[in-house]
Amino acid sequence: MGTISCNKLDDVKITIPKQVSKKENQKTTIVNVNGIEVGGKEVVIFAGPCAVENREQLFETAKSVKASGAKILRGGAFKPRSSPYSFQGLGKEGLELLSHVNKELNIPIVTEVMDTRQVELVSAYADLIQVGSRNMQNFSLLKEVGKSKKPVLLKRGMMATIEEFLNAAEYIINQGNDQVILCERGIRTFETSTRNTLDLSAVPMLKHLSHLPVIVDPSHGTGLRWMVPFMAKAAIAAEADGVIMEVHYNPEIALCDGHQSLGLNEFSKLMVELGKIAKAVNRTIL
Amino acid sequence: MGTISCNKLDDVKITIPKQVSKKENQKTTIVNVNGIEVGGKEVVIFAGPCAVENREQLFETAKSVKASGAKILRGGAFKPRSSPYSFQGLGKEGLELLSHVNKELNIPIVTEVMDTRQVELVSAYADLIQVGSRNMQNFSLLKEVGKSKKPVLLKRGMMATIEEFLNAAEYIINQGNDQVILCERGIRTFETSTRNTLDLSAVPMLKHLSHLPVIVDPSHGTGLRWMVPFMAKAAIAAEADGVIMEVHYNPEIALCDGHQSLGLNEFSKLMVELGKIAKAVNRTIL
Amino acid sequence: MGTISCNKLDDVKITIPKQVSKKENQKTTIVNVNGIEVGGKEVVIFAGPCAVENREQLFETAKSVKASGAKILRGGAFKPRSSPYSFQGLGKEGLELLSHVNKELNIPIVTEVMDTRQVELVSAYADLIQVGSRNMQNFSLLKEVGKSKKPVLLKRGMMATIEEFLNAAEYIINQGNDQVILCERGIRTFETSTRNTLDLSAVPMLKHLSHLPVIVDPSHGTGLRWMVPFMAKAAIAAEADGVIMEVHYNPEIALCDGHQSLGLNEFSKLMVELGKIAKAVNRTIL
Amino acid sequence: MGTISCNKLDDVKITIPKQVSKKENQKTTIVNVNGIEVGGKEVVIFAGPCAVENREQLFETAKSVKASGAKILRGGAFKPRSSPYSFQGLGKEGLELLSHVNKELNIPIVTEVMDTRQVELVSAYADLIQVGSRNMQNFSLLKEVGKSKKPVLLKRGMMATIEEFLNAAEYIINQGNDQVILCERGIRTFETSTRNTLDLSAVPMLKHLSHLPVIVDPSHGTGLRWMVPFMAKAAIAAEADGVIMEVHYNPEIALCDGHQSLGLNEFSKLMVELGKIAKAVNRTIL
Repeated sequence: MGTISCNKLDDVKITIPKQVSKKENQKTTIVNVNGIEVGGKEVVIFAGPCAVENREQLFETAKSVKASGAKILRGGAFKPRSSPYSFQGLGKEGLELLSHVNKELNIPIVTEVMDTRQVELVSAYADLIQVGSRNMQNFSLLKEVGKSKKPVLLKRGMMATIEEFLNAAEYIINQGNDQVILCERGIRTFETSTRNTLDLSAVPMLKHLSHLPVIVDPSHGTGLRWMVPFMAKAAIAAEADGVIMEVHYNPEIALCDGHQSLGLNEFSKLMVELGKIAKAVNRTIL
Repeated sequence: MGTISCNKLDDVKITIPKQVSKKENQKTTIVNVNGIEVGGKEVVIFAGPCAVENREQLFETAKSVKASGAKILRGGAFKPRSSPYSFQGLGKEGLELLSHVNKELNIPIVTEVMDTRQVELVSAYADLIQVGSRNMQNFSLLKEVGKSKKPVLLKRGMMATIEEFLNAAEYIINQGNDQVILCERGIRTFETSTRNTLDLSAVPMLKHLSHLPVIVDPSHGTGLRWMVPFMAKAAIAAEADGVIMEVHYNPEIALCDGHQSLGLNEFSKLMVELGKIAKAVNRTIL
Repeated sequence: MGTISCNKLDDVKITIPKQVSKKENQKTTIVNVNGIEVGGKEVVIFAGPCAVENREQLFETAKSVKASGAKILRGGAFKPRSSPYSFQGLGKEGLELLSHVNKELNIPIVTEVMDTRQVELVSAYADLIQVGSRNMQNFSLLKEVGKSKKPVLLKRGMMATIEEFLNAAEYIINQGNDQVILCERGIRTFETSTRNTLDLSAVPMLKHLSHLPVIVDPSHGTGLRWMVPFMAKAAIAAEADGVIMEVHYNPEIALCDGHQSLGLNEFSKLMVELGKIAKAVNRTIL
Repeated sequence: MGTISCNKLDDVKITIPKQVSKKENQKTTIVNVNGIEVGGKEVVIFAGPCAVENREQLFETAKSVKASGAKILRGGAFKPRSSPYSFQGLGKEGLELLSHVNKELNIPIVTEVMDTRQVELVSAYADLIQVGSRNMQNFSLLKEVGKSKKPVLLKRGMMATIEEFLNAAEYIINQGNDQVILCERGIRTFETSTRNTLDLSAVPMLKHLSHLPVIVDPSHGTGLRWMVPFMAKAAIAAEADGVIMEVHYNPEIALCDGHQSLGLNEFSKLMVELGKIAKAVNRTIL
């Protein structure tokens, strides 16, 4: 009850919960982020800084990535950091900065929520609410965003199986919110040359088992700025519905994750290359 | 600032946050759970059912494990389950049952908190508040239990490094609560014959780097009832300060984790064997 | 001595042995497999059955994959199988069948060698000698193929780090044979929905650190026939120099790995799609 | 054919090959290493240097570990090293030194074989032939030691499942040699504070599924000298049939693995503690 066995693929031994499960001939669900459709023919590019730092940083970065073709702006106001002594984000002030840029530049924003008590606040500012990797099995938070009216970007836990990931999405849908985008962002393995191991096979697997759209985060997935373009292209070739990347107007001075953030020019050039790959798989970008 | 490099062990490359860090010749911190000291000469045994199901189940199990020598009763009222369709726990009713048993049998209780909004409620009933594996990097929850006056049992995330685990404990201590017990409960690896891979080397490693007491959960660590005794003994031989085990008065009908729960007689016999190992490492149990 | 630190990438902490290491502005080494150049502008496709089974199977498969654009024929005569009761390959008879097809169809062949005592024999038949994943750290075998005059296809161990992989290649080159092709074929992780986790980030990483050409094996990397096309495309987008795939004229009756082998028509259609991706990254296939 | 499903444990999903499989009420097979019985009531301690370096080093170490209670001397003549530029062992000269010490001190020796062509040579000197982790799935080597008359110490691959490990043992037995000792030596996980993650749950699991004796290598399993005593004790508490440890008469100058080798005094003291644990589980050491 509530789950179905996977009978489309005899060789994949997974029990898929019923609401995220893809039915016979079902198309990818289109998630509408304030006018931007994720899951359709267009490959949607999300870009922006790891953390919102100040107005200039956010505005300059947002203006540039939008001009280059990004459709949704990312930026963290509440930051989950391994150490309590690392920069924890600007909090509500960060949300307000995001909101100003949203209005001035007319670009939807996605930002993370980390606490059930903040869901209402974050929902008031964001067009798309992010549940981060470390909270993928924070079931209280999943239920709370499931009660929200805003679409949700659910990142795969760095230790989560495909089955657990789909069950986490089911927690959200089960509360009445079926606007969920799945995001592969790298899993933890024995390999240490990259920050995580980006599991691109998760893209076709998730799209085969579920009707939800799937995007990829090569910035966290690799942790290496120079590797982001390679993996962004590979993600689109594997038929991801979008790519989310960290871009900063000056990565050298970023308060967070500068080593994995693209500069504005790098991002602009990359967009042209991504367009070529999208075309090769019958998708569009710009 | 806030962290120190590990210079005691040139061969361990870890940056340890300052408050959890063990200073020269520092002894293990004793955490006092309503009169029961964890971190001293005695190896403390925690036992009880995975989930509180009803009064009979909890009371019969508690009475028996106490008689066998367990010092702290475990039992979940709020249950983190991978699927939204699995039993989610009795909630507040479960807390009240725990509280009744606590008073009748005079045994301290530990139970899990999953939501920042529940910390006050759970603190009112529990003697020791548990933060589970899936919430080890739920930083909002860590901060909230750090503000509580109750001691905290922090379980290692199933894919958390030793460094991340110690940083999670630092989040709690940094809010003013230094009564933290660390719990190794198995990590996720490629091996599938056991539910997780119990990393017993974490016990000497954590005790070498930090002054906090360390206990082991062989029930979740192995997922196999028959294997629990072997790993409980090994944990004590590796100098764990305690062992936490799932025990049920009738594992065959348990609503949760019955396959890894010991029956009452098995537990009673095991306690005798654990006592022998404790003695062999100059510790006591009963 | 013999190794250099990686100073091109401050953020990659790897010690690279000197002969596999890429020098400033060094281009990818071209490995010449009996006239087919691996490492140049062309993305080289390797295809064929997991194991050589009989003349008809090998000949029909080879003829078809060649017509579809594959440039090198794969086929195992000595098979490394987890169980001693599984089909172990045709041995020398398999090598002779490969040799016949090679002459009739004029397509170079790659086949695996598993024993130092077989290197001379296999070298007499193969155009490219494969060292499989399970033997990546069989140092005696690496030294022996290093003394051979034939180019070597070295597959990454399923548990091998990038650093270990490059050191294994160094063992070969250090014996005088610098014609080495590296192959990413999936690593072992906690995820079980795929046979292994194909680590495509290994492609840009290996090409950044080393001058050796890099190919990808999506058949073993995923273990799922339907997923091979997605990952083959992604591999080329990530700038692999080649892709090796299992193709069988009748996957349903294959003695080995039929569930991950493409049929002849599937392969033929896929080649057209791979050509589009190759073009999008300024490479060619046909 | 050749394999049986595991019907003793409904909760362990493993297919066990028939000859390694434990039958109803079957006792642990006793492997006789030139008079020393492994698999009986006594917990057998194996000790000695990582690599044989010279006569003095080997003789002094051997004399001391024997006096402390070790029953089998370990020492590598052929060394599997990740880098071709690391010390590769003394080869035949090392075997001769081992043989001299064997005769003078009357202690059986175990040493590694890495190449099918060396099996005859190594068998002529060793009382117990070791197949190392990196060669656990070198099937040619497994078959060759299976034809030998000498008992075999088979180390688990660092990323081998229990099922693969038992199948590797089956390869040996299937050639007619049923004198096989299994050795858990740490698996590769995401955790980097220890060299590997010692999987002690493998001990009860292997002994439950198979009749072969199981020993543990805490030296390679942890890579940290100070941690070896903790894990050696835990291994015996988990009912290992033996422990193999690296001991060197002067770890500071060891050519290989000095950081994980115990000094002679440390080893001597540890033996006393191991005896107490052995007694607590009804086994003996001295």
